[in-house]
Amino acid sequence: MRVGIIGIGLIGGSVAIDLRKEGFATQIIGVDSNQEHASKAVQLGIVDEVSSLEVCIERSDIVIVAIPVDHARDMVKSILDRSDKVIVMDVGSTKGGICELVRDHANRSNYIAAHPIAGTEYSGPESAFAGLFKDKLNIICEKDFILPEVLEVGLKLLSCLGSKVKFMGAEEHDKHVAYVSHLSHISSFALGITVLDIEQDEKNILDLAGSGFSSTVRLAKSSPDMWTPILQHNSKHLIGALDAFIDQLHDFKTLLKNEKTTELHALMTKANKVQEILEGKTTNHEN
Amino acid sequence: MRVGIIGIGLIGGSVAIDLRKEGFATQIIGVDSNQEHASKAVQLGIVDEVSSLEVCIERSDIVIVAIPVDHARDMVKSILDRSDKVIVMDVGSTKGGICELVRDHANRSNYIAAHPIAGTEYSGPESAFAGLFKDKLNIICEKDFILPEVLEVGLKLLSCLGSKVKFMGAEEHDKHVAYVSHLSHISSFALGITVLDIEQDEKNILDLAGSGFSSTVRLAKSSPDMWTPILQHNSKHLIGALDAFIDQLHDFKTLLKNEKTTELHALMTKANKVQEILEGKTTNHEN
Repeated sequence: MRVGIIGIGLIGGSVAIDLRKEGFATQIIGVDSNQEHASKAVQLGIVDEVSSLEVCIERSDIVIVAIPVDHARDMVKSILDRSDKVIVMDVGSTKGGICELVRDHANRSNYIAAHPIAGTEYSGPESAFAGLFKDKLNIICEKDFILPEVLEVGLKLLSCLGSKVKFMGAEEHDKHVAYVSHLSHISSFALGITVLDIEQDEKNILDLAGSGFSSTVRLAKSSPDMWTPILQHNSKHLIGALDAFIDQLHDFKTLLKNEKTTELHALMTKANKVQEILEGKTTNHEN
Repeated sequence: MRVGIIGIGLIGGSVAIDLRKEGFATQIIGVDSNQEHASKAVQLGIVDEVSSLEVCIERSDIVIVAIPVDHARDMVKSILDRSDKVIVMDVGSTKGGICELVRDHANRSNYIAAHPIAGTEYSGPESAFAGLFKDKLNIICEKDFILPEVLEVGLKLLSCLGSKVKFMGAEEHDKHVAYVSHLSHISSFALGITVLDIEQDEKNILDLAGSGFSSTVRLAKSSPDMWTPILQHNSKHLIGALDAFIDQLHDFKTLLKNEKTTELHALMTKANKVQEILEGKTTNHEN
């Protein structure tokens, strides 16, 4: 199958590597507005060639859109406008807006709204690697709008990546990722800034940071280019999640202030459960 | 040298393992109020024997206090009350209260207020391992109160652990760790609870959690028994840190609400710097 990859970064590049390795892709054409990334992707053998969008659409059986979600929205529509044959799959982290935009499109049934729950804090084609999606969950939203034979191709592609598939409504998806992904990113960014600000007054405070702090701010390394549109597109659900998080922090502060140690202990014991669930979670993905 | 270990958990146990390995300790006597931990520590060969506190003090040249900070405070004083010979080192995460309590004690100069910046989210003697402190920073507070030959023993002990040593005032220490350690813990606990609460309404939301979320809530696994007194003892500095963190989260929320994407991008770009500093940080510890 001839595969087009729009955006050859961490996600697009890792998809390309696995699809070639598994024999799904016989030819891979890349498109990237960043010329440096495009050349690097050819040089690394991630794609066979880079081309214009037009050529890529014309010569591909399936096109994967792996660019920031604000551009992905227009890109998916633009590809559906240009071709009634090519299958389009986008892999962005928000799904509500894009699904709504193309809901009544004549070629809607050629579009697969996907979200692989995988990634690292790195970006660009050099960060791509084989096996990024192995045993990771991939959400497909609004499956009933997809032509059965199109969905079949999509599922075959995801199985080549080693992904586990879950179907979900687009709004439901966006709400869930607001809590378990986007909120974590904001928490990391905000914690990073809080400590940088105090460091200005109290030199070398970061010298005392242990591995716990590093783990908690790991996501503060994430790309602002990628995350600005994600947060913006999911602001409706994210503001609710932020409110709930701020409320929890206020609870901790109030208990500390009032020396309510029993309640503080109970709150931390409750939090311990999230790790128990996460550790048992991998077995719950088969569906 | 005969070493006493009060509290044979992750920290006390790991100290014991390294001190024996490096030949610093010729005999190790453990004390633990948890009988199961005490037996386990003997069984694992971490300590040679367990005894009462009295016997341990009498037969040790140096006693390491590695119990929750609320008990550590009274324990250090109690040991100084009982002996004018034994060297006492505590390894708790807060230092202001304990240093203040013993400041005018007749045997103050036998006491080393230490804080190794190392640990994992696990606890108990089974979690102890060799090399936990290697290349990690160890803070010693109020060094000028320590007898030079006592300090020398303490520094030799820390060098056997492979620690790097930094001297600091007790209040300064507590403020710094409020930001780079204690705040991270509260952030993880609070994020964990926020997601557990929404999971009650929206089943299986945790199915969508990726490695980013896991990393951000890793510390939510930490022991409430250990962390309740730490947070309580450092509440003065921690409340300031929490206020600053909540302010940052409010900033993110306001920018999202008002669709200020340029400012949102700038804020995340600023946060990226914390990772750059952390990655370059290891070279700054030599002092």
